[in-house]
Amino acid sequence: VFNAFGKLVGSTQVNELGQLETPIVLTNTLGVWDAARALADWELAQPGNENVRSINPVVGETNDGWLNDIRGHHVRAEDVRRALESGAGGAVEEGSVGAGTGTMAFGWKGGIGTSSRRLSAAEGGYTVGVLVQTNFGGHLTMAGVPVWKELVPSGPAGMAGGPRPDRGGSCMIVVATDAPLDARQLRRLGARAVFGMARAGSSGGHGSGDFVIAFSTTRRFDADGGPIAAQPAPAESALSPLFDAAIEATEEAIDNSLLRATTVRGREGHTAEAIPIERLREILRRYER
Amino acid sequence: VFNAFGKLVGSTQVNELGQLETPIVLTNTLGVWDAARALADWELAQPGNENVRSINPVVGETNDGWLNDIRGHHVRAEDVRRALESGAGGAVEEGSVGAGTGTMAFGWKGGIGTSSRRLSAAEGGYTVGVLVQTNFGGHLTMAGVPVWKELVPSGPAGMAGGPRPDRGGSCMIVVATDAPLDARQLRRLGARAVFGMARAGSSGGHGSGDFVIAFSTTRRFDADGGPIAAQPAPAESALSPLFDAAIEATEEAIDNSLLRATTVRGREGHTAEAIPIERLREILRRYER
Amino acid sequence: VFNAFGKLVGSTQVNELGQLETPIVLTNTLGVWDAARALADWELAQPGNENVRSINPVVGETNDGWLNDIRGHHVRAEDVRRALESGAGGAVEEGSVGAGTGTMAFGWKGGIGTSSRRLSAAEGGYTVGVLVQTNFGGHLTMAGVPVWKELVPSGPAGMAGGPRPDRGGSCMIVVATDAPLDARQLRRLGARAVFGMARAGSSGGHGSGDFVIAFSTTRRFDADGGPIAAQPAPAESALSPLFDAAIEATEEAIDNSLLRATTVRGREGHTAEAIPIERLREILRRYER
Amino acid sequence: VFNAFGKLVGSTQVNELGQLETPIVLTNTLGVWDAARALADWELAQPGNENVRSINPVVGETNDGWLNDIRGHHVRAEDVRRALESGAGGAVEEGSVGAGTGTMAFGWKGGIGTSSRRLSAAEGGYTVGVLVQTNFGGHLTMAGVPVWKELVPSGPAGMAGGPRPDRGGSCMIVVATDAPLDARQLRRLGARAVFGMARAGSSGGHGSGDFVIAFSTTRRFDADGGPIAAQPAPAESALSPLFDAAIEATEEAIDNSLLRATTVRGREGHTAEAIPIERLREILRRYER
Repeated sequence: VFNAFGKLVGSTQVNELGQLETPIVLTNTLGVWDAARALADWELAQPGNENVRSINPVVGETNDGWLNDIRGHHVRAEDVRRALESGAGGAVEEGSVGAGTGTMAFGWKGGIGTSSRRLSAAEGGYTVGVLVQTNFGGHLTMAGVPVWKELVPSGPAGMAGGPRPDRGGSCMIVVATDAPLDARQLRRLGARAVFGMARAGSSGGHGSGDFVIAFSTTRRFDADGGPIAAQPAPAESALSPLFDAAIEATEEAIDNSLLRATTVRGREGHTAEAIPIERLREILRRYER
Repeated sequence: VFNAFGKLVGSTQVNELGQLETPIVLTNTLGVWDAARALADWELAQPGNENVRSINPVVGETNDGWLNDIRGHHVRAEDVRRALESGAGGAVEEGSVGAGTGTMAFGWKGGIGTSSRRLSAAEGGYTVGVLVQTNFGGHLTMAGVPVWKELVPSGPAGMAGGPRPDRGGSCMIVVATDAPLDARQLRRLGARAVFGMARAGSSGGHGSGDFVIAFSTTRRFDADGGPIAAQPAPAESALSPLFDAAIEATEEAIDNSLLRATTVRGREGHTAEAIPIERLREILRRYER
Repeated sequence: VFNAFGKLVGSTQVNELGQLETPIVLTNTLGVWDAARALADWELAQPGNENVRSINPVVGETNDGWLNDIRGHHVRAEDVRRALESGAGGAVEEGSVGAGTGTMAFGWKGGIGTSSRRLSAAEGGYTVGVLVQTNFGGHLTMAGVPVWKELVPSGPAGMAGGPRPDRGGSCMIVVATDAPLDARQLRRLGARAVFGMARAGSSGGHGSGDFVIAFSTTRRFDADGGPIAAQPAPAESALSPLFDAAIEATEEAIDNSLLRATTVRGREGHTAEAIPIERLREILRRYER
Repeated sequence: VFNAFGKLVGSTQVNELGQLETPIVLTNTLGVWDAARALADWELAQPGNENVRSINPVVGETNDGWLNDIRGHHVRAEDVRRALESGAGGAVEEGSVGAGTGTMAFGWKGGIGTSSRRLSAAEGGYTVGVLVQTNFGGHLTMAGVPVWKELVPSGPAGMAGGPRPDRGGSCMIVVATDAPLDARQLRRLGARAVFGMARAGSSGGHGSGDFVIAFSTTRRFDADGGPIAAQPAPAESALSPLFDAAIEATEEAIDNSLLRATTVRGREGHTAEAIPIERLREILRRYER
């Protein structure tokens, strides 16, 4: 947790037990409770879970209330179920999709972004993957270039009550790795992801509920919470390359969430423009990137 | 948080901001998400909140799945709404009521209990009130008397899969005071409540999700989170009498939750007996209490 | 950490890395820094550590300033060194010894106490041992008997500025186990020890800096922080018996610290009396213990 | 605490009570205990403190063992005392001074740096000042310019066992403000300072013990921990400009610690070069800064 002004359902139990019991679902702020209920129902309906009477769904959110009629509760249980059942390997959709459909970042259309890094064999050959749901403000910086000075979003700035490019919002960050980190080490890994946010230009504003959840795909538990034979956790001194990977992948995932987003028109004519790629390219060229 | 194996919805934001935005609702484990949604809806429907697009409902729970058909989701939005609207001052119902209808403690029927202490005028004259939802195990101890050695619950022990008197369950504790404590001091106050659990005989088992939430009735905030003129927070050295009060009131509230509970027959013939008051009285007398 | 009004040197790094780099030393409040320096020097002087330039000594304390001329800094580096080098297996000295020489608990002479529990083979056969340095107040309760009502310490109560039996002081608790718990599980184990304090009658006062440090003797690390082949950590659901053991052993260790303490006369004629064992025996008999 | 692989003496009590009892002293890793003792002695020797028997000195550190003969304990009690007594208002010395004499950052000579921001009158007119002790690695970035690609430190890279420019080390950050923030808000403020580290290029390595301590100059306490009449704490929504200020000032203070550092030759011929200002200027010009 960087800034707990947010509603990451299930996070306290994950911290206590070091275990995820369900997939992670992302949605909008006022949709977390319905999504948690739907996720719990889906999990309890799995074969073998007939007598389970406790489950800890994990649901993150950011507030897309500028574009989305968030009080209308348009995300329904069947949407959650469909998302859970259509999950698949391969490329991840990015931009104005899923829980990123209505989010905004730095005054532009934000959304879902992803990125990953693979360590060299000498460093363990592990992969760190990051997925972000960007909905925050600050001073947009790409590869160190102060994009915010050059490209000013026209939309919301011109609309009364629109989100300020330099403030607010939130960011949900999910970090996955196949390194066999234990829960304490995963906390350390997750903490680094906020460095990626900082580099992308986040202002860490009061209203930005910024949560990171990090998990390992190679450390699994049975229903009693007993470890299923895993490699031992790596030495602490072997973590630094994983930390680097988490920082870089987070920064790049944030960039990708903007670069892949498309302009979205939402409730009451509110509009969030996609960042203009061509002009961005020129700017980066000018700064020798 | 003593043991975060539980689902106190909204707790992370309360810790970050030090503010409650809604009443606190208690229910069963699988009902927290529906209750949170209902509580959020109710709050957003209050006059003046037409344009509010974020709210942090606080909902605690314990798992009453032995008596309650918890997978059936029988607590509905209208139940939450009715509870919110029928709230009133005066005596608090205790025992097998509300979120305590299906809970068990130490192998007996548990439930809702409450107690309070008032400090002397020299110590500030403040009141500390505690409400508990008891659903945990251990070795029942009243006023130091090892009741567990003398009175053995027959019900669940004799039923396959029933809750063990010495284990599991959870306890939700709400501590209210009119002392103008700030958020940091309220954390300190809440931490003491677990001493009351310990004295009542809780085993602090792995499965017992034990949460305390403490608030002050005299420290209020406006919609921006700005403080409404309050007395200054008391000196740290003045807190000890409040800590004593929280410990004593928590222990007594736990006792009351048992003493006021009535026998409840639940799903599939599962039964939880009320602790037999007359035999208890004899035992306490024998131990000179 | 239950109440961090205290000076457990080295605790933050232990939490981050989950590793102890040195033995744990206990002393008085104003002696922690000299003891930490001495402990660090001793560790750095071990063969093989010639090029080590960082070390995290762990030193706990309680404030014995009523009996001890604490501002005089009478514990010196050579005392720490001697303690480190004379460490041995076997029975542990209790009472008015070492860091417990000047401490007081419940208005009586406190000190060092220890106790342990062994789990049944079915529960893993593990041992949990607890060592306490008692220097706190409250309402002394032994095996549930309200000793405080029957036996009132005459000493300090009668002396101006003496420690109140019901307040203040601190407690250091060290929990050791041969169960192969990881750092997160050790935190959970340590948290239970405060239940033992609560049962012994601690008031959890503002001024009581209460720290628990729990470690496993079967989970070891090499100099890089890499795990040395260990059994896997047990399932969470197997922890409850260990929790019970920690609670019981802590309560008993606190009792032992009082029962083994001897009357000590300190600076300026201040005296702390040992609890009168014979009268205590009568009281416990009367309450059928 | 960002990464608690470090030894910030006194931090746990500051978190619990929300109060500093002494000035903050910075030194090297193996010198913290002597410095804490010296700081405690100095404070206890102040007029009026004759009967004080508890004090919580706060001492931070980074590890300068490459240049400094850290095992030699060359910082003595009289050095600490002199520093405490020569403290004065006005400009702050920066670079290779005090606790920054032997530190290195990004492969260059690091040290002490400072910077501040003042908010507009509309935002409260408050000042946020930051002081850093830089001793960490990563990829040096100034105003977004990837300096690390252009300027490679020759010194330590060429010496066996020298600190890697991209790793390790630590950073101590002290944030001071005249805004009347309470302890919870100061934690939030301090958390933002790590964004400044991230922007400067820190890799957040495993070995980097990164601590922030934030305090308010306008919220004072008497000896009992009672608040001395202060303005009320500001609304949470007013904190964002303070957060921005902390981020910017931290980044700039880190830059200043490098820009003001001078080349230092230490033990065994180890040398850390100051960053070459002229070449740096050219690079920044080339990137249009």
